[in-house]
Amino acid sequence: MKKQEETIVALATPAGVGAISVIRLSGPDSFAVTDKIFSGRKKIAACKSHTLHYGKITDSEGITVDDVVVSVYRSPHSYTGEDSAEISCHGSPLIVQKIISLLLEAGARQAEPGEFTKRAYLNGRMDLSQAEAVVSVIQSSGEASLRGARNQIDGFISSKVNDLRERLLNLSSLVELELDFAEEDLEFVPEDILTGKIDNVVKELDILISSFRYGKVLRDGVNVALVGMPNVGKSSLLNFFLKEYRAIVSEIPGTTRDIIREDVVIDGIMYRLFDTAGIRKTSDVIESEGVIRSRETISSADLVLFISDVVQQFNSTLYQEVTSLTDPSNVIRVMNKTDLAGGETLPDADIYISVKNGTGINHLFDYMRNKVSGQTTYTEKTAIITSARHLDCLKRARQHLITAKETVRAGLTGEFISVDIRNSEAALAEIVGAISTDDILNNIFLNFCIGK
Amino acid sequence: MKKQEETIVALATPAGVGAISVIRLSGPDSFAVTDKIFSGRKKIAACKSHTLHYGKITDSEGITVDDVVVSVYRSPHSYTGEDSAEISCHGSPLIVQKIISLLLEAGARQAEPGEFTKRAYLNGRMDLSQAEAVVSVIQSSGEASLRGARNQIDGFISSKVNDLRERLLNLSSLVELELDFAEEDLEFVPEDILTGKIDNVVKELDILISSFRYGKVLRDGVNVALVGMPNVGKSSLLNFFLKEYRAIVSEIPGTTRDIIREDVVIDGIMYRLFDTAGIRKTSDVIESEGVIRSRETISSADLVLFISDVVQQFNSTLYQEVTSLTDPSNVIRVMNKTDLAGGETLPDADIYISVKNGTGINHLFDYMRNKVSGQTTYTEKTAIITSARHLDCLKRARQHLITAKETVRAGLTGEFISVDIRNSEAALAEIVGAISTDDILNNIFLNFCIGK
Repeated sequence: MKKQEETIVALATPAGVGAISVIRLSGPDSFAVTDKIFSGRKKIAACKSHTLHYGKITDSEGITVDDVVVSVYRSPHSYTGEDSAEISCHGSPLIVQKIISLLLEAGARQAEPGEFTKRAYLNGRMDLSQAEAVVSVIQSSGEASLRGARNQIDGFISSKVNDLRERLLNLSSLVELELDFAEEDLEFVPEDILTGKIDNVVKELDILISSFRYGKVLRDGVNVALVGMPNVGKSSLLNFFLKEYRAIVSEIPGTTRDIIREDVVIDGIMYRLFDTAGIRKTSDVIESEGVIRSRETISSADLVLFISDVVQQFNSTLYQEVTSLTDPSNVIRVMNKTDLAGGETLPDADIYISVKNGTGINHLFDYMRNKVSGQTTYTEKTAIITSARHLDCLKRARQHLITAKETVRAGLTGEFISVDIRNSEAALAEIVGAISTDDILNNIFLNFCIGK
Repeated sequence: MKKQEETIVALATPAGVGAISVIRLSGPDSFAVTDKIFSGRKKIAACKSHTLHYGKITDSEGITVDDVVVSVYRSPHSYTGEDSAEISCHGSPLIVQKIISLLLEAGARQAEPGEFTKRAYLNGRMDLSQAEAVVSVIQSSGEASLRGARNQIDGFISSKVNDLRERLLNLSSLVELELDFAEEDLEFVPEDILTGKIDNVVKELDILISSFRYGKVLRDGVNVALVGMPNVGKSSLLNFFLKEYRAIVSEIPGTTRDIIREDVVIDGIMYRLFDTAGIRKTSDVIESEGVIRSRETISSADLVLFISDVVQQFNSTLYQEVTSLTDPSNVIRVMNKTDLAGGETLPDADIYISVKNGTGINHLFDYMRNKVSGQTTYTEKTAIITSARHLDCLKRARQHLITAKETVRAGLTGEFISVDIRNSEAALAEIVGAISTDDILNNIFLNFCIGK
């Protein structure tokens, strides 16, 4: 990997007033640049890695700007893999601004967004998929999205992808080996064994590709619309959810919550519950505003809970209206108030519950979860795809293998098969960044904040 | 000093999303509490002071919450003087919240506002005046206020005050010594020498007391109202100020700038310039809004630049109106457009300038500076009082010395004089916190942010 010649600097902690702020430097001159403005018991350049040093930052006129503690990280044992220093100063925007100005004068340059993490990747401290996950970890606002990002940063995707790459490379070697000895009339690997091996990889790619739906659920949560006639128990069900599972959403400045929306977390998945005030047609102007909003909510929901009760029974007009707005497979027909039912046969539904008694609710949760994640059980350590870029690479890798199988069936020689298999491997290599272009990198790190 | 038994925890960096956030722990169990949730190459409890350790924070189910770096500070070599750890994690509010929750479960408690700095004071790492300056340093939004706060944190006030305390204690010892030997008819210290020594301390107290006006200027800046008839060059002067001295105010979320206000920094002092649209009486309703605002601006300004020009000359009606709103000693009479003057005698004014040629402007700056800081020259190392609490202590110390002099003149014995001198010293001791009550402390640290 090519070495970065320049030393970069940026504020690493959130902007604003606090007890302390941390300014991060990375690159070959990190210590020399720091020493130009820092005076402590000894020169930072003479300090061991992973040590802390108290001292003062002074400006060109010798006036103290602040008391600081400098953290020393020597290459390769730093986040970026380069020599790196962190200056911990008082948490004042003015002081931060002054110290960064002094460091710029002393020879550092302002870091670009994500440049520290980009260097970590370029210096082999993490692969591209892990580097991408850093920004997801930082921006996670819920348990589930954090879990998806941690999964990626912990390398579950990388290790799965690298395993598949190795199998493909072995396969292509096998095919190429035959090629070398083709003149000598050696026996070929039988066609069905070759396609069988390819099929196994395709199967694993399919599992990864299908995990994207769950990954999206982890990352973005699930939008759920509650629909039903008045008095079927919509509000009771909503209140039941909120009482038990209301999400504690961390307060991030700038995020506002939709007033008609409530977030609950059940088994680590964030569900955003939207109560639809009423979707019935009406001549009243104000209500028709609500009607339009309800229709939009239903058509954009990932799941619709269509709630009836054993008294009013199933309203097929309303159901038709709902299924005209969304794919019927997204709709769960919930029959409430089973406690009021006598011995008679209950109307058709997917799930029978009694909010009053709490019966059937766990069944409803399982049903909702299966709807969004499929039958696959995902554990903390299953590789789960959350990135659209990764999904695209996986789909291309799969397509090259399908082509490879056709090439095998067409009876073409090993060199042709090998090209397809190697193309598939190359598509997977993009995920972990074993192959990458400046365009890909710039695009990825553009989304980072400066200082990471 | 009493030891703090509890281990406290708080986020030390500003809240929000960033590359990293730092969580700070202090107290006897800092390392034990950290070890309960941290796993690295070795236990934090076994690590040397001033070292950095990479590892993972895991929750009770063994799931990784984040990769972190822990800084170890062993007592007494930490900010608080206690065992202390700083956990540097990804800058996500959610991760911060999770790690703090885990630390609370592990036995730490949430820190109160300013509690880290309060412990630093209680453990003798800084005196009270320096501890108070910490919050001023953090909240400084301009060069000048930062300079005032640095002056205090660097101990210029403490060392001046401690010097005066020592002189007072020597003086009281001298008086008490006489008391011990009173029976033996020893010669007393002559009355005039005693009052002379007291007077010298009073003189130094007066200098400190009078520095408060300059300290306030450093801390809060100077409000300047620009007043004058149309076309005397008010706007040109304002533009001249802005072009050369416009303040770069650091962007702190939540601060908004007054639209009719412009900040300039000249020789390290922040001047807030208010352009008064017009203060002439008018029947027009909209303009009279402006008139009311202009009058308020003038009466609340620290300085008023009353601008005339050599053509229109001095408008005494307007001048009378201005001086009815503010102390005439706050008004600087500026005569502009001296470039247009012929040989005739110019009308009376404090300062003659030509904005067009730039002449006289430096003179105007010096004049403004003298008006707000008096004739005293303050350097970086002069003790400057910026705190109203300190001012109160100094005034009480002074009053006790005045009483002491009266006691001397009344011919009372040494024991009475000694009480007055010791009271004076005690008032000074409050500044540096050599004497303090829980009330004083609580009051001071209430203004801090949590985590400092």
